[in-house]
Amino acid sequence: MSRRNSRRRAPTPDQVIKPKAQQLFNPYAPIEVLSADDLDLIHDGSMRILEEIGLEVLNEKALGLYENDGARVDWDLQRVYLDRESLMTRLQTVPSTFILHARNSDRNRSIGGNTINFTTVASAPNSSDLEGGRRTGNFADYCNFMRLTQSFDIIDFVSGYPVEPIDIAPETRHLDATLAALTLTDRAFSCYCLGGGRVNDGIEMTAIARGVDRETLKNEPSIITVVNTNSPLRVDGPMLDGLMEMAQNGQPTIVTPFTLSGAMCPITIAGALAQQNAEALGVIALSQIVNPGAPMVYGGFTSNADMRSGAPAFGTPEYTKAALASGQLARRYNLPFRSSNTNASNCVDAQAAWESQMSLWGAVMGHANVIKHAAGWLEGGLCASFEKFIIDIDMLQMMAETLKPIEVSESTLALEAIREAGHGGHFFGTAHTLANYTTAFYEPLVSDWSNFETWAENGEKTAYQRANEVYRKYLKDYEEPENDPQIKISLEKYVVERRKELEGQQ
Amino acid sequence: MSRRNSRRRAPTPDQVIKPKAQQLFNPYAPIEVLSADDLDLIHDGSMRILEEIGLEVLNEKALGLYENDGARVDWDLQRVYLDRESLMTRLQTVPSTFILHARNSDRNRSIGGNTINFTTVASAPNSSDLEGGRRTGNFADYCNFMRLTQSFDIIDFVSGYPVEPIDIAPETRHLDATLAALTLTDRAFSCYCLGGGRVNDGIEMTAIARGVDRETLKNEPSIITVVNTNSPLRVDGPMLDGLMEMAQNGQPTIVTPFTLSGAMCPITIAGALAQQNAEALGVIALSQIVNPGAPMVYGGFTSNADMRSGAPAFGTPEYTKAALASGQLARRYNLPFRSSNTNASNCVDAQAAWESQMSLWGAVMGHANVIKHAAGWLEGGLCASFEKFIIDIDMLQMMAETLKPIEVSESTLALEAIREAGHGGHFFGTAHTLANYTTAFYEPLVSDWSNFETWAENGEKTAYQRANEVYRKYLKDYEEPENDPQIKISLEKYVVERRKELEGQQ
Repeated sequence: MSRRNSRRRAPTPDQVIKPKAQQLFNPYAPIEVLSADDLDLIHDGSMRILEEIGLEVLNEKALGLYENDGARVDWDLQRVYLDRESLMTRLQTVPSTFILHARNSDRNRSIGGNTINFTTVASAPNSSDLEGGRRTGNFADYCNFMRLTQSFDIIDFVSGYPVEPIDIAPETRHLDATLAALTLTDRAFSCYCLGGGRVNDGIEMTAIARGVDRETLKNEPSIITVVNTNSPLRVDGPMLDGLMEMAQNGQPTIVTPFTLSGAMCPITIAGALAQQNAEALGVIALSQIVNPGAPMVYGGFTSNADMRSGAPAFGTPEYTKAALASGQLARRYNLPFRSSNTNASNCVDAQAAWESQMSLWGAVMGHANVIKHAAGWLEGGLCASFEKFIIDIDMLQMMAETLKPIEVSESTLALEAIREAGHGGHFFGTAHTLANYTTAFYEPLVSDWSNFETWAENGEKTAYQRANEVYRKYLKDYEEPENDPQIKISLEKYVVERRKELEGQQ
Repeated sequence: MSRRNSRRRAPTPDQVIKPKAQQLFNPYAPIEVLSADDLDLIHDGSMRILEEIGLEVLNEKALGLYENDGARVDWDLQRVYLDRESLMTRLQTVPSTFILHARNSDRNRSIGGNTINFTTVASAPNSSDLEGGRRTGNFADYCNFMRLTQSFDIIDFVSGYPVEPIDIAPETRHLDATLAALTLTDRAFSCYCLGGGRVNDGIEMTAIARGVDRETLKNEPSIITVVNTNSPLRVDGPMLDGLMEMAQNGQPTIVTPFTLSGAMCPITIAGALAQQNAEALGVIALSQIVNPGAPMVYGGFTSNADMRSGAPAFGTPEYTKAALASGQLARRYNLPFRSSNTNASNCVDAQAAWESQMSLWGAVMGHANVIKHAAGWLEGGLCASFEKFIIDIDMLQMMAETLKPIEVSESTLALEAIREAGHGGHFFGTAHTLANYTTAFYEPLVSDWSNFETWAENGEKTAYQRANEVYRKYLKDYEEPENDPQIKISLEKYVVERRKELEGQQ
C-alpha cells in the first residue's frame, strides 16, 4: 500500500509507476441509530438552545457580524441568539462537497458525500515508542511522523501536528512545522486556528508549496483547520479570528464542539448531541456570513466522562452511538462530517485496539468524510505512539478493504475451480487459485497468523513489538517526495523572513 | 451485569431480585454488502453447484432419504444432486425463529429475526492464562469456563465445550462434560454431533435437567449442536447420524461449512459464499426430510487462508464482508443465522482485539442470531484463553450497549441542565447529572481510563494483566445456580449408568 517507490526522481520509461492513490468511498448505507422523529427532536432541541440560551462569543468582530446578519446580540454578556429560519438559510451556502488540494495533485481529496479521508493523530503533547518510552513532543519525532505519513497511501492528508514540537519556540513553531510538513510529505496540511497571523502564514506557505497565487487558492481549498468550542456554549476569540481568516480565503474549517457527556454537556447522549449541534451549526453560520460558500466541516466528538474520575473516555458504546448519530445530523444539513479514531488506553494493548475499532466503525458507518486522529492516537490524545500509528495503518487498510464490495461474476463464482478441486479436495493448486493468490486477500502489516509453535520460536512477539519493527523499517526506507528546488528555496526564504519578523516582535 | 446475586436459594421478600436477563435484539438495519442482483448471482451459483456438481454424502441412510425425497443420487460416488425448486420447497418448513429452552426459563432464548445470542468459545484443544501459560485442555479448566459463563448475563447459552477436557476418557467425556454444564450453569447446552448415541445422551440429560419428558422436549428445543461440512462439498457420516437424531427429536443443528477461501473453497469471496451456501442449504434440507419443521440454523464461517502458509486467518476484511454477506443469504431463505467472534492471534494483544472487533461488527451488523465463540477464543480456535474470555465479555457488553437506541425525550435533551451549567460552566454538579450519573454510561470490566501517571503508579498493567485479575475475581465470587437436588441426583445416576454401559462396550 506504500507509495514509497512511486515518486522516484528520475523514473525510467520501463519502470512501473504505481497507480494514483485512490479516493476512498463508503459504498454501504450508513448505520442509522436515530429514527427520523428522534433526529427532528435533537434538531429542535439544538435550535431552542441557540434561540433561548445562545452562544457566548468572545470576539467583538464576530459579534458584530452576527448582529449585522440579523441575529440578536447581548453585548454585555457577549451572547448571540440565532433563530432557526435564518440559521438554516445561512447553512444552505455551505458546499456539501469540496476538494482539498494538495501540492501533489494525486493527493487531492474530496470531502463530502460518501468519501472517507483518514488523517494522522494531531496535537498530542507527548510521543512514545518501545525503545524510547514516553517523552515530551519534539521536532525529531514530529518529522518522523511526517515521514511515516508519507509512507502510507491510506493517510489522505495531515490535519494537525501529529505531536507538538515543544523544543521549538512557540512564536515561530508553526513556520518550522509547516515547512517540514510541506516538504517531507506531498499531502495537504493544516494550520492551528489561533489568530489571523498564524493562519495567514499557513495560507501563504501553502500557496508557495502549490506554486499558485492566493487568488487561485481562494477557489481551491488547500489548507484545513479545526475550531473547538469551549463547551458548553462558549467560543474562543482567537479561534474565531482564525476561522474568519480561513473563510475569507476560501479555506475550510472543521468545527468540533468538545462535548464530553457529563462534564461539558448533559450526561445524556441526546442532550450532548443537541448541544454539539447547536455549537457546531452556530459557529459554521459565522463562516457563511464572512464568505458565503466557504467550505466547512461539521465535527462530532461527543464522548462520555468516566463519572468516577471525570476523565474522558473514548471508543465507548456512547461514543460510537454519538458518532453514528452525528453523521445523521450532518447529513440532515448536507454538511461534510468529521469523526475520529480514539481510545483512552495508556499503552498499545488490546484496549487501545478495541476502543479504536469501536471508534472507527462509528466513524466509517456514520459516513464521516474526515476521520481525524486515524493513526497514532493514544491516551485520549495525550500521546502520539509510533507503534499505534502502524497498528492503525493496518486497521485503516483493513477498513478500506472491507469497503470494497465483493466482486460477483461468473469468474469469481469459480464453479470451474470447484469442479477441479473435487469433493473433499483442496484449492491450493487450482488454476483459479494460482491466477489470483497474490492479490486475492488483504496482506496485513502487523497481524501474525503463524501457529503457536512458530510464533513462540520467533520470540513470542506481541502486536506492539511487531509494530515497532514495522515502524523502524518504514522510517529507514522513507523516500522524500518530489520537491521542486525553486519552491523549496521559496518556502525556506519565507520562513527565514517571517522568523525575523516574529522574533523582532517579542 | 452479573446475575451472581440474583438466584440465591432463599430470597427474602424484601430482597431486590434483579430483572430477568434480557434477550438482546439488533434494532438497526443490517449492513448489506451485496446488491440484490449479486445476491441472486451467488444464490444461482450455489444452486448450480448442487444441481451439477452435487454433495458427497458419506452416510447411506441420508443418501436413501435424499433419494426418497426425489433427489438424484449416485450411489457409487455417494453423491446427491438437488434441484433448486425442490430444495427451496424443502427449506420452507424451517422455522424462521425458534426458542431454545434452558433449565432456568429466564435463560430461554429466541433464535431468529433480529435477536442476538452470544455463546462461549467451543472445542479449543488448549487453554491458557497468564500464570499457567498454555496447556492441554483439561476438566478443571473446562469447569472454570462454565463458572465464568454463569457469571455473565451477556452469555446466552453454551454451544460447545469451551475447552476439550482431554484428561477424561473420550468414550464417556460427553457425560461428565454435560453434567458439569447442566449443574454449573443454568443455560441451554449443546452436544457434539458425532453419532446418534452421544446425541441421545445429550437429549436425555437435557430432558432430566429441565424436568420434562422427551415428548415435551420435541416441541421445546433445548439442546443445540453444530455440523461442519468437510468442505469442499463432502459431508461426514457420523455427523449426519447426529443431525438426523437431533432433527427427529425437534432439536436444532447449526450447519456451518468450513469454507476457508483459497484452501477449502475458491480464492474469491463470491465463490466461497456460493460453495458455503450450497453446502449449508444442501445439509439443512436433510433435516426437513427427516422432520419437517425441525429448527435449524444457517452457519457462515467463510474466511481466508494466509496464502504464504496455508494457515487460516480470521477477523480479516474478507472475513467481515463474508459474515455480512452470509447474513444476507440466510435472510434470503428466512433462516436463522450464525456467525462467530474470531481472531488468529497467539496472545491476548492488540491483534486479538482488532480481529475480534472486525468479526463482531460483521456478525452483529450481519444480523447473526447466534454468535459463537463470542468469549474466550484465541489462536484461530486452538486455545481458550481466560483473559480473552473477560476481554470479550467487555466487548460483548459494549456491543449490547451500542445496540440500545439513544433515548430522545424532553428529559434527555436536558435543556434545563444546559441552562443550569451556563456558558463555559460544567455539568458535574447539575441536578440532571446527579440524577443520572450512576447509570448513564456503560461501566467497563477491563478498560482503564486513568491518566498515564496514575496508570504508571498502578504498575503499568496492560488489558491482558487486568483481565487476569478480573477473571480470578469472578471465579472466586462464583455462585452455583439453583439446582434441584432430585434432578441433580437423577443426572448423576444417568451418568453412572451410562458410564458403565459405555465402559462395558470397550
